[in-house]
Parts: sequence; C-alpha cells; structure tokens
Amino acid sequence: MTGPGSRLQPRVVITYGTFDLLHVGHVHMLRRLRDLGTRLVVGISTDEFNATKGKTSLVPYADRAIIVGALGAVDEVFPETCWEQKRYDVIRYGAAVFGIGDDWAGHFDHLSDLCRVVYLPRTPDISSTMIRGSIDPADLLPRPRVP
Amino acid sequence: MTGPGSRLQPRVVITYGTFDLLHVGHVHMLRRLRDLGTRLVVGISTDEFNATKGKTSLVPYADRAIIVGALGAVDEVFPETCWEQKRYDVIRYGAAVFGIGDDWAGHFDHLSDLCRVVYLPRTPDISSTMIRGSIDPADLLPRPRVP
Repeated sequence: MTGPGSRLQPRVVITYGTFDLLHVGHVHMLRRLRDLGTRLVVGISTDEFNATKGKTSLVPYADRAIIVGALGAVDEVFPETCWEQKRYDVIRYGAAVFGIGDDWAGHFDHLSDLCRVVYLPRTPDISSTMIRGSIDPADLLPRPRVP
Repeated sequence: MTGPGSRLQPRVVITYGTFDLLHVGHVHMLRRLRDLGTRLVVGISTDEFNATKGKTSLVPYADRAIIVGALGAVDEVFPETCWEQKRYDVIRYGAAVFGIGDDWAGHFDHLSDLCRVVYLPRTPDISSTMIRGSIDPADLLPRPRVP
C-alpha cells in the first residue's frame, strides 16, 4: 500500500494453525508473516475442529491460544472452528494478506478475490532436534530445578 | 521508583530458566515478572549447564532462546552457563528485581544486597493437561494439516 494514509491504516495479515508444542519453526513462520504487514491475526484450530480431522493436539486450545497470543509478532488470536470461516474472517479483519506454509500450496487460492494469498516455505524439519528417542511424558511436566 | 526521571529510566527485571517445551505456566510467569518492571531479561540455561545438573531438555538451547525471546513480555535473552554468574548479570543489566518461581524460595536471598529478590507462586501443575497417556515422538514433528 502506498500513498496518503498508508502509515495510518494497518495492513492486516491473517494465518491459521494448531501450533501444538510451539517450536522455532512456528516462531520463524509467524515473524515472516508479520513482516508482510503491520498486524498479524492468527486463527488457532480448536480441539473440536481438530477432532473432525482425526487430529489430536497435546496442548489444549486454551493454552495454545495464550502461548501464540503471547508472541511479540502476534497481535490477536481467534478460534478456528471450521473450514468455511476463512472468507468471513478475511472480511471481518479486513485482511490484505492470507499467508500460510507452502505445505498448503494451492489450497486457498479461492480467497484471492478478497486478498493476496501467499504460501511461505517452511523451515525444513526444524523440530526433529526435539526428538531424542522415546519421550517420557514426565518430561512435559514443569520440574523444579536442581539447586 | 518515583520522582523525576522515573519514566525515563528502565526498571530491569531479571530471571532464569530452561523453558523446555514452552507452556502456559512459563508464559504467565514471564508476564508477571515483566509487570514488576519495564524491561525483562531472561537467562536461558544452556544445554551444557543443564548437563552439569544431570538435566536434559528436549529442545536445544538455540531454539529455546529464540522461542522465549519471541515473547512480547521478554526484552532480551542471554545464556546461563553457570551458577556463579548471577551477581555479575544483576550488575551488568542494572537489574532492580531478581524474580523466579517459589520452588526456588530462599535460594537467591544472597542477591538482596544488589536488588529486590522475589519468589512468585507457580501456576499449579499447569502442564499436566499436556499429558495424555504416552507421547508418540512423531507428535513432536510438524505435520501438514489434513485438507
């Protein structure tokens, strides 16, 4: 956006995801999305919506929303409850850009009558470093540090 | 801090932690620490330092530092490499407050000649919701969403 008023009017970027166990790939992606505009709003898939996809997250929706919303790059989060809401969301947020990882390439081209649709390359396999053999569930509990 | 200049001079809060698999308890704690001042600096325990404590994190130091540094409440992160650095850190950052979870109550009173030392109550067992039976390591990998 150029011309008079461009500094006053926010350029909203919208994206969606589950963001289970927030990792550095999520952080990089959200920063790059934020850099496409001046305001980033993020639809967080609810547990019920994920269930319809046969997908279960380890962290419940309420916690995922708080964690993603706590990132400096993220201005607002909202629940993603169904596939059909995206057109409505783009309109109600006045989004100039719909952005998402390129594992979704082509899937949201139908929104391009409303806004720019971009598919960003994902950081390759960035979370594999998190995996060290089998995970003990106790590792996911907060532990007091050894003095 | 009151009186002239109080709006210009930052009130630095300092804290430390591993912040493995960032959860909502971490986010709440960091926000409350940030609210004690105007700038929050966070020492992130390095993998090597954790190893001396017999502790292993699932997420490596470099990623943990990026993720914690991406939170809106956090102004700066730095490596925590040994127990002895805290006095030096409080002085070099000009920290007015040293804050940490109350599972550490009493352990850092020796810093109270340099700054205020506060122990904040932890959110009780906030991460237990993350645990649903046994964790499949594949769940920690980023997955493309099912269209």
